[in-house]
Amino acid sequence: LRIDPISGRRVLVAEVRAGRPNDFLSNPSKGPSTAARDHDECPFCRGHEAQTPHSLLEVLDEAGQWQVRVVPNKYPAVSHAVPDKSDPGDDLFAYEAPLGHHEVIVESPEHVRDWNRLSSAEAARVLRVYRDRARWWSNDRDTQHVSIFKNVGSAAGASLEHVHSQLVALPYVPPNVATEAVRAATHYATHGSCIFCDLIEKELAAAVRVVAEHDQWIALAAFAGRQPYETWILPREHSARFELLSDGMIDSLAVLLCDLFDVLGRQLVPLHYNFLLHSAPVGGEHDAAFHWHWELVPRSTKLAGFEWSTGMHINPLSPERAAAQLRCVV
Amino acid sequence: LRIDPISGRRVLVAEVRAGRPNDFLSNPSKGPSTAARDHDECPFCRGHEAQTPHSLLEVLDEAGQWQVRVVPNKYPAVSHAVPDKSDPGDDLFAYEAPLGHHEVIVESPEHVRDWNRLSSAEAARVLRVYRDRARWWSNDRDTQHVSIFKNVGSAAGASLEHVHSQLVALPYVPPNVATEAVRAATHYATHGSCIFCDLIEKELAAAVRVVAEHDQWIALAAFAGRQPYETWILPREHSARFELLSDGMIDSLAVLLCDLFDVLGRQLVPLHYNFLLHSAPVGGEHDAAFHWHWELVPRSTKLAGFEWSTGMHINPLSPERAAAQLRCVV
Repeated sequence: LRIDPISGRRVLVAEVRAGRPNDFLSNPSKGPSTAARDHDECPFCRGHEAQTPHSLLEVLDEAGQWQVRVVPNKYPAVSHAVPDKSDPGDDLFAYEAPLGHHEVIVESPEHVRDWNRLSSAEAARVLRVYRDRARWWSNDRDTQHVSIFKNVGSAAGASLEHVHSQLVALPYVPPNVATEAVRAATHYATHGSCIFCDLIEKELAAAVRVVAEHDQWIALAAFAGRQPYETWILPREHSARFELLSDGMIDSLAVLLCDLFDVLGRQLVPLHYNFLLHSAPVGGEHDAAFHWHWELVPRSTKLAGFEWSTGMHINPLSPERAAAQLRCVV
Repeated sequence: LRIDPISGRRVLVAEVRAGRPNDFLSNPSKGPSTAARDHDECPFCRGHEAQTPHSLLEVLDEAGQWQVRVVPNKYPAVSHAVPDKSDPGDDLFAYEAPLGHHEVIVESPEHVRDWNRLSSAEAARVLRVYRDRARWWSNDRDTQHVSIFKNVGSAAGASLEHVHSQLVALPYVPPNVATEAVRAATHYATHGSCIFCDLIEKELAAAVRVVAEHDQWIALAAFAGRQPYETWILPREHSARFELLSDGMIDSLAVLLCDLFDVLGRQLVPLHYNFLLHSAPVGGEHDAAFHWHWELVPRSTKLAGFEWSTGMHINPLSPERAAAQLRCVV
């Protein structure tokens, strides 16, 4: 793990990842379709379990067959297993050991590409695995933050098309989450309230960026979305940590997400996206000010020189127009 | 211009840009080749000047024909021309007027795709135009920072393949440059020296990330590069502001850049990249601590959920290995 002396950016140099298999390499315009001919070589399909490391967790059906499977990432970006060879560095060239845990959640034994092929019961089963793994790592004494994310389609950086997600447990709070946590804490100190709860209240009153509304959930076109149709999903009642989610809440979240992916998949063809869980750092000190949420970022426009140079974003579709197109009352 | 209440991110919602022409839309895997059949419809080719706004500057040859041409961006991300319709906003939903100037530099009258088809004399002519437009906007009383960047190839966000760059003059310092300026000022306050000058000295001594070395210039594989082969080009002698560059320096820079693009183009096929100028904010207060430079970022790996969620990067090629592959003494 290197820290850029000029910008402070944190970069994991992980040459092991250059060896990853890639469904999309030979045909970069592929991506949207499930390809039966890929099944034979897919390391995530049932029967190919020997191509991945041993399972850390399996959800079994009544016949004892796995339905969801968690394995260590074979090409980890972070790891506790690697001996620390880091250079001592100095004030300009700063190295840190690339510590952490990197897992893959295989979300179906079948070679399907996305949640639009799962029932809401199957999606709920996957969400329970997310919750249980997040809870597991939250109880690890070295872990400060747990990230869960999903890459779907080549434009979103997916290397394999079989439906799956990744979990990264880190011994520090990553920069984007740290920024959110600091700003949330500042808002809490000033207003005595959670900034996300205040946001939900204002968005419900304004009613121009609400994509879906449910007793327990709200989906919003992000006020300053980075990409067209960027949508955030939040629990309406204050909760800082995803790992505390109840089974009942998971069932209703699964229904909302399946509907949302269905609507998005009809709006954006092909739908390539990242789906990002932001939960509070572990330990409880952020529990009053932070509010966990999913960020669903479709990847229909490229980041270009303007974004890389300035750190700002250009979004060619207003969030209000996006919400009007997606709005579905669940 | 909207400011995200949770993260503080600045996002330009610019629906006018959804109407841009796009050479790559129908065939996303295209990009590397110059396509003669596109010439007829290319708004940047000689003879098609009526398809762009009027020139702001033209460099003419002896026959009075333009060789380099600067025009206002027809689909600007920022503008002083648009009346301020911004919502007053509030503490959660903050809007600012999307002020600024957005220009396009058409770098050849011929339909060539990249600098590898230009001579170093032609490249120097382009660099002089960059310098002159940067100088122009640095003297504008509303401008705080001038960005110049180039997107080449669809993976780098280019919408047109005809060789060109963009300039954005902003009435504030954009976040990434502001971060660099703050860190450079902190280093200067602590060490009494420019952090970039110190970096150059250490890199020359270490000699493991030097890609090219010249009396006046150095090209380095960035210590914490975000992408494989990310390369920075800096003047060896301290200089904060690109717009003060001399003609003699431009000639030697053109030779270095042409060589560098040539080497990169052989290493990465196709070569899609962003080329980003970071110059000090205008006004002089950063002149001692800041050091202007180009960041050349090939775009061979996608930003995926990990990067979007955490704000960290994963680079599957070590900068030392990249430098060894690219090293060319100019």
